[in-house]
Amino acid sequence: MEAEPIKKLLEEVHSGAMSVDEALVKLRRLPYSDIGFAKIDTHRSLRKGFPEVIFCKGKTIDHIIQIVQEMHSSGLRIIATKASPQVHQAIKQILPEAVYYEEARITAIVPEVPRSSRTVLVITGGTADIPVAEEAAVTAELMGSRVERLYDVGIAGFHRLLSNVERLFSANVLVVVAGMEGALPTAVGGLVERPVIAVPTSVGYGASFNGLAALLAMLNCCAPGVAVVNIDNGFGAGYLANVINLMSEEKR
Amino acid sequence: MEAEPIKKLLEEVHSGAMSVDEALVKLRRLPYSDIGFAKIDTHRSLRKGFPEVIFCKGKTIDHIIQIVQEMHSSGLRIIATKASPQVHQAIKQILPEAVYYEEARITAIVPEVPRSSRTVLVITGGTADIPVAEEAAVTAELMGSRVERLYDVGIAGFHRLLSNVERLFSANVLVVVAGMEGALPTAVGGLVERPVIAVPTSVGYGASFNGLAALLAMLNCCAPGVAVVNIDNGFGAGYLANVINLMSEEKR
Amino acid sequence: MEAEPIKKLLEEVHSGAMSVDEALVKLRRLPYSDIGFAKIDTHRSLRKGFPEVIFCKGKTIDHIIQIVQEMHSSGLRIIATKASPQVHQAIKQILPEAVYYEEARITAIVPEVPRSSRTVLVITGGTADIPVAEEAAVTAELMGSRVERLYDVGIAGFHRLLSNVERLFSANVLVVVAGMEGALPTAVGGLVERPVIAVPTSVGYGASFNGLAALLAMLNCCAPGVAVVNIDNGFGAGYLANVINLMSEEKR
Amino acid sequence: MEAEPIKKLLEEVHSGAMSVDEALVKLRRLPYSDIGFAKIDTHRSLRKGFPEVIFCKGKTIDHIIQIVQEMHSSGLRIIATKASPQVHQAIKQILPEAVYYEEARITAIVPEVPRSSRTVLVITGGTADIPVAEEAAVTAELMGSRVERLYDVGIAGFHRLLSNVERLFSANVLVVVAGMEGALPTAVGGLVERPVIAVPTSVGYGASFNGLAALLAMLNCCAPGVAVVNIDNGFGAGYLANVINLMSEEKR
Amino acid sequence: MEAEPIKKLLEEVHSGAMSVDEALVKLRRLPYSDIGFAKIDTHRSLRKGFPEVIFCKGKTIDHIIQIVQEMHSSGLRIIATKASPQVHQAIKQILPEAVYYEEARITAIVPEVPRSSRTVLVITGGTADIPVAEEAAVTAELMGSRVERLYDVGIAGFHRLLSNVERLFSANVLVVVAGMEGALPTAVGGLVERPVIAVPTSVGYGASFNGLAALLAMLNCCAPGVAVVNIDNGFGAGYLANVINLMSEEKR
Amino acid sequence: MEAEPIKKLLEEVHSGAMSVDEALVKLRRLPYSDIGFAKIDTHRSLRKGFPEVIFCKGKTIDHIIQIVQEMHSSGLRIIATKASPQVHQAIKQILPEAVYYEEARITAIVPEVPRSSRTVLVITGGTADIPVAEEAAVTAELMGSRVERLYDVGIAGFHRLLSNVERLFSANVLVVVAGMEGALPTAVGGLVERPVIAVPTSVGYGASFNGLAALLAMLNCCAPGVAVVNIDNGFGAGYLANVINLMSEEKR
Amino acid sequence: MEAEPIKKLLEEVHSGAMSVDEALVKLRRLPYSDIGFAKIDTHRSLRKGFPEVIFCKGKTIDHIIQIVQEMHSSGLRIIATKASPQVHQAIKQILPEAVYYEEARITAIVPEVPRSSRTVLVITGGTADIPVAEEAAVTAELMGSRVERLYDVGIAGFHRLLSNVERLFSANVLVVVAGMEGALPTAVGGLVERPVIAVPTSVGYGASFNGLAALLAMLNCCAPGVAVVNIDNGFGAGYLANVINLMSEEKR
Amino acid sequence: MEAEPIKKLLEEVHSGAMSVDEALVKLRRLPYSDIGFAKIDTHRSLRKGFPEVIFCKGKTIDHIIQIVQEMHSSGLRIIATKASPQVHQAIKQILPEAVYYEEARITAIVPEVPRSSRTVLVITGGTADIPVAEEAAVTAELMGSRVERLYDVGIAGFHRLLSNVERLFSANVLVVVAGMEGALPTAVGGLVERPVIAVPTSVGYGASFNGLAALLAMLNCCAPGVAVVNIDNGFGAGYLANVINLMSEEKR
Repeated sequence: MEAEPIKKLLEEVHSGAMSVDEALVKLRRLPYSDIGFAKIDTHRSLRKGFPEVIFCKGKTIDHIIQIVQEMHSSGLRIIATKASPQVHQAIKQILPEAVYYEEARITAIVPEVPRSSRTVLVITGGTADIPVAEEAAVTAELMGSRVERLYDVGIAGFHRLLSNVERLFSANVLVVVAGMEGALPTAVGGLVERPVIAVPTSVGYGASFNGLAALLAMLNCCAPGVAVVNIDNGFGAGYLANVINLMSEEKR
Repeated sequence: MEAEPIKKLLEEVHSGAMSVDEALVKLRRLPYSDIGFAKIDTHRSLRKGFPEVIFCKGKTIDHIIQIVQEMHSSGLRIIATKASPQVHQAIKQILPEAVYYEEARITAIVPEVPRSSRTVLVITGGTADIPVAEEAAVTAELMGSRVERLYDVGIAGFHRLLSNVERLFSANVLVVVAGMEGALPTAVGGLVERPVIAVPTSVGYGASFNGLAALLAMLNCCAPGVAVVNIDNGFGAGYLANVINLMSEEKR
Repeated sequence: MEAEPIKKLLEEVHSGAMSVDEALVKLRRLPYSDIGFAKIDTHRSLRKGFPEVIFCKGKTIDHIIQIVQEMHSSGLRIIATKASPQVHQAIKQILPEAVYYEEARITAIVPEVPRSSRTVLVITGGTADIPVAEEAAVTAELMGSRVERLYDVGIAGFHRLLSNVERLFSANVLVVVAGMEGALPTAVGGLVERPVIAVPTSVGYGASFNGLAALLAMLNCCAPGVAVVNIDNGFGAGYLANVINLMSEEKR
Repeated sequence: MEAEPIKKLLEEVHSGAMSVDEALVKLRRLPYSDIGFAKIDTHRSLRKGFPEVIFCKGKTIDHIIQIVQEMHSSGLRIIATKASPQVHQAIKQILPEAVYYEEARITAIVPEVPRSSRTVLVITGGTADIPVAEEAAVTAELMGSRVERLYDVGIAGFHRLLSNVERLFSANVLVVVAGMEGALPTAVGGLVERPVIAVPTSVGYGASFNGLAALLAMLNCCAPGVAVVNIDNGFGAGYLANVINLMSEEKR
Repeated sequence: MEAEPIKKLLEEVHSGAMSVDEALVKLRRLPYSDIGFAKIDTHRSLRKGFPEVIFCKGKTIDHIIQIVQEMHSSGLRIIATKASPQVHQAIKQILPEAVYYEEARITAIVPEVPRSSRTVLVITGGTADIPVAEEAAVTAELMGSRVERLYDVGIAGFHRLLSNVERLFSANVLVVVAGMEGALPTAVGGLVERPVIAVPTSVGYGASFNGLAALLAMLNCCAPGVAVVNIDNGFGAGYLANVINLMSEEKR
Repeated sequence: MEAEPIKKLLEEVHSGAMSVDEALVKLRRLPYSDIGFAKIDTHRSLRKGFPEVIFCKGKTIDHIIQIVQEMHSSGLRIIATKASPQVHQAIKQILPEAVYYEEARITAIVPEVPRSSRTVLVITGGTADIPVAEEAAVTAELMGSRVERLYDVGIAGFHRLLSNVERLFSANVLVVVAGMEGALPTAVGGLVERPVIAVPTSVGYGASFNGLAALLAMLNCCAPGVAVVNIDNGFGAGYLANVINLMSEEKR
Repeated sequence: MEAEPIKKLLEEVHSGAMSVDEALVKLRRLPYSDIGFAKIDTHRSLRKGFPEVIFCKGKTIDHIIQIVQEMHSSGLRIIATKASPQVHQAIKQILPEAVYYEEARITAIVPEVPRSSRTVLVITGGTADIPVAEEAAVTAELMGSRVERLYDVGIAGFHRLLSNVERLFSANVLVVVAGMEGALPTAVGGLVERPVIAVPTSVGYGASFNGLAALLAMLNCCAPGVAVVNIDNGFGAGYLANVINLMSEEKR
Repeated sequence: MEAEPIKKLLEEVHSGAMSVDEALVKLRRLPYSDIGFAKIDTHRSLRKGFPEVIFCKGKTIDHIIQIVQEMHSSGLRIIATKASPQVHQAIKQILPEAVYYEEARITAIVPEVPRSSRTVLVITGGTADIPVAEEAAVTAELMGSRVERLYDVGIAGFHRLLSNVERLFSANVLVVVAGMEGALPTAVGGLVERPVIAVPTSVGYGASFNGLAALLAMLNCCAPGVAVVNIDNGFGAGYLANVINLMSEEKR
């Protein structure tokens, strides 16, 4: 974030010309960094509590590198999702501290943060859902949450779910990832009182129509306390789960 | 069924000109009753073990009455589905022995049959699924099955299902009726080793798209041993469940 | 909830035969009330923090009344959604303390609860979205949240949204209700750091396809921190918003 | 299946503390084998009569091998569907007794079982439907059914079907596999009194929409006694057909 | 058709300034009758061999009457489809010679024409398809074809179809009308060498999606010689069948 | 629009404290009128050149009246679309100068404006498309355009279109309204060099799927210079056509 | 076709035991050739006037070769559609007289037939539709029709169509091939009195949804005398066009 | 355009036998250039103000080259869209003056034109939308418009849009390109009074369904003054924007 406008604002605050509350509101509305083909929302960190995340799919490596460099020089934390190994290699060459989470396909340069005391639990119906689940789990971890994983507990064999019921009850927020018929969020949502973020995946074939079946099932979930994100959107689920999780850690 | 062709055939069987097996195969191919606007498959009873069933929706009462009379005069059992009270009244006026199953919307003239020793269990996710479930249950009963009902045990509160698990295990065939996210067949199918006929219902709103969500979910069911019929097709499920159920009663 | 099993359990706790934690887990798994056509999840209140809610659409008034009576005699709070004035009148006749929230189409018998210190903000894009928004708002209020409303601030005139930006920032959880192109959650989600529950409505015509356009738009929302519920599902959004909101009120 | 819990249970049965029936019910609810990324439902064999089947598509060869090894060491029969030749080679290297059914794309390690006296008949509309049909046929065979095949008898030339009508009548259960307009199950279902499992395939082009046309046609099948599985789901059809078929072999 | 341009043209033909062929081509391009809200294609009769047909659905009775009067005063034959009894009464009041075909919902003022020697055969799968079939049959009759009807011969009982196979073989053009799974055109198209016009109907429920299932099935028909018209478009099928039928009657 | 903020702004302009350009930009961002359930965008007139239009469908008459009154007291022009006769009567009672355009279903209180010298031409394929076309035509007229109509010139009889080709060439902007196959915009767009706004209508049946067929056709229009609005959105087309038309009238 | 049954039948005809007409009907019902994986409908030539055609897509070259050999040894004409150059090479190696029509992707061994005196006209909207059009044209030619081609006359520049209007009028049957918005059949169907077979193609992008837009448009065609085949189904259109065309050549 | 017909026409104009207006109308109806597989609309330049544009996707390089040569020899400007580098190389070999716009994938041979005084502004929501935006921008530039670009200003961070609000206000026509939820046109359309052409892109994943979500959102746009083109149709948007833009430059 450029120094100029913030400096001026802080001086006004200092002089009493502007109250602290007014200043905060102003800060939330201001800048971005224009690198020609992209306008990086460099102050999203202030507004949203975390900087913009780079969605790599469909971007050239060259564009990704420019964005990474701009963000890094602005002192921002970096998370790049849907990052192929090639993308990671390219980033690592300029920023050797970049870490690659292979199953999650995330490259990140994020300083250690104290992990939350409460837990986000990421659950999958099958093993093929794990990449999406890992995207959710790693996202939440990088943003500050303690994360637990409970994989392959689909309801076609739901003693697997039931024998882990204490883990369900002890989680603060739950991310439930499932493809095919997408029934797991209903079962989980019927048990726990905590928020459930449901993630349909494109796992399946035939009448799964690339995740449509799971998506519709989750939207029609008859257990309350469940909301849904886009098909395969592990990042979105992890992000939201982390936001909710950290809310209960806040000092008041 | 007209007497002529059968008589000739039986004489041939009697004279030894035709074997019994040949005769049976021939009988399975022959007649129907032509009443102008309709060709009633009067010998389906021989071929399929049960006569044609009258699907009332979209037929005029006058047409229904003509078909009922033709079937009755052929000595056939009569089941009319999706029958409104008006349809029932009209049938009852000419055939006072007609019985109306109100919730199932079925009118029937079917002699008492010995009920099977084994059981078809009809299950619903919610209370709004009951009319479709009753259509299945009454159909199977009229055709010879002993039927049990287990309603309102959707997986959003699946202790209700679990506390009835012995009833699931003791059923010979299961019909699982559910709307909204249609998750119940997966849960049931994951528990039992017997065939599960899944019936999606149009119960729901919004992204249920009149039963599409439940239909897709059931088709993607990841528990084996489950097959699906059309949305709201209680009759089809009851019919098939009965056929499977009676198979294990057969003398060999 | 019946007294028997709880009493036995408590005695075991008292005698030390069972730890408190074990008892809680057990309690979460037990009973329901069987009234024939329905199995009321009477102990959901323990498991989920709030009893089952009655979805009136597609149920007969007679069924609704039976469920209401059973729940009331179990000492449970009652919320009936999608309740027509007729449904309300029928409930009021047996339980005169029932309150009707007309725009929200909710009938409720819920004792006053202390409202949360933090706020759920319910926002709509247009005036036609208000019934769904009210369903969300009333639900959250009845369950314990303080709720504010900000209606008719769609982004086609987004100075209306911007001039209310402080209200957005001060909310703890946001429910954003919109039909037609469903763009409002992206705009709101881009501004605030708090969770956003997006509710597509069936408001629109032509290529809105009864809310499909808004639903797809919200699922593809490119602002993070947003999750989606079913079309017109104000109750689901209000329920989840309340759960998240109360999480930050919890004593630790 | 781990020995511990079963041993304890058996001792209770032995001592009379638990009845046999109770024990059976308990056994049906218990264990699974946790290998980190997957929870193998090792006792499904008890509950469902056949162990979990490995759906290879979308799993890495490494994962498949680990699951196969775990199942094998638990003494379970192994069926892996949608298995490429590469998958088969990898399995064969560790378990040389693995058999590959090329057209069915199934790898299996299943001891010889006595074949049922009654027959599952697998029928296709065209030659392009054969791989899906073989998946069904091999599945049913491995699980204990005698299977016959009747391929390429679509109703566009239905003298081919009619001249095989005795084979239709003599089958105990029928699996009907068809793509394009999916009309074959109606024709078969109209002839036989035995259960028909319909399998739509993705064979076709243009308005077949990858099997959607055949799927919808089969769901709307106006012959009774027909149920449908997912597009290209030969395994599911063969599994269910086998379950139904073996039901009539049971001793009573 | 107005007299002026035709007169001038005929004089040119008479004088040899224009050849007969040229004149015919010119005549095919010319006029229409403008009555303000509508431009009646009064010379379509010359170009297409039959005048424009009035599609009543969605038009006010007042508009229909004006169009009928304009056409009648131009000496054109009149066919009005999807005509309610009310529409018919209104037309009959001004033109008492109008004839109403109730099942077909067609009102017509068409002089007797010699019927073709060859036959259009209209077939239905069920009795609920008859209104659409009648629209096709009456249309073809009014335009000059001899029409036969063969109703309720769906392939779920296809001995009904087979026992009428000689009627199929003797038809010159076939119109096949079916709802639900729409399989009949494939069976018919597999038997006959004559053109088959397939008409999907909206008969059905659930996954028939108002005729979509039948439409897709017919488009994927694997018998050659079949083409499809819009759902419930009996008129279109009857029109095209008549055109093809009369082609073989032409003198050469 | 309230006087206060504008007055202050104008004084600053007057005093030179603010440039005219700055003032204009400011004015474009400011106010709306809050009447509780709605926030009327009272200054849209400044920003967009025309005030907000009231979309009546789905609003109560009471809400409509409140909005009309608020707008009228702000001195704004009023256009209410999809207005039933009942809505018009209610408005007329409080504002007798309201004019009702019956076919267009528009109620308006708009002072006479000088009509543009150039013309918007509104074209329909059939007579059933006229209500949507009238909505477009009346909208453009009320906003200042001279409008011509050319109805019922669908390409199934395209001599009707060709004989009006000079009217096509002389129009400044064209609105083309068509249902069913929606082919007319391609034909028109292939002829003229002026912008074509295509409006699909829900006219049709069966596979028109309520206008989807026409919508898709228009989006795939292979003539350049064509853009599409929502199904039945006559208002949107008329509004945009008028904006484009008036652009060429502007003084520079 | 095997000689045995025909010989016997002919002897009966010869002896007068069977009439010629009866014999013809019998012949139409009999045989097929069973080569294991396929049942070749070898006598379709008698029934349908042309033998079965080999649809190559989705078949292995080995299967295709076996079918070709079986058909050839039965003395049948051979047409293989969707044949890649590889398929053609393989066929040519065993049957050097095979001819490849590259653009149509058809391989054929068909003796010269006298071409019909009347003409099938194949029309395309664009140049990208030509492969599908060629499949139609070559099919019709091989089966006996004289075929003319008129390519790239889409209505976006419809002077191209109009300047060829005499060719349209002189055709006996018309095949109209178009992608994108699929408007050409309406324009052609509005001009000619002869049958129009419309073929949607998958040419296009975006909202063409692989030919769905063109398909829906053609089904909604408001010109009478038009029927539709599957997307990209040039063969089906050519086959049907030829059947209709040859009908008017028949001697009577 | 061939000289002959124009010459004759001009002589008639010269001699007074034809008025100028008549001549113009005639010229608009005449010729095209027939090169066998294609009919190039060589005089579209007169009728539409710009010659036909070559859509390269799905055409062979050989066909493209022939079309380019024919157009070039007719003295026409050449724009080829969706042109791969290979296509460009092939064109450049015969016409070295061809210019390649890499990001836009356009090859063009267009003489310098005076740029308009007013501006088309092309806006994108994200960086992945830039190729489609460039296709629009380059198209409009080549046809005569001055174009500005404002990329990556999606409303998830809409201070980026707001801080460019003066650029929005100063544009004459706006092209708004966005994928995913497609919300940007509503935000832009709510601000400006000038026409907005919305272009949905296929950017996104999961429930974006290849641009369907963005397309539906834009069609439901609740800001007036917005129309939509096909998914990824940058050319169509640029073309229409240029037409509208140049309209306000016309001398009158």
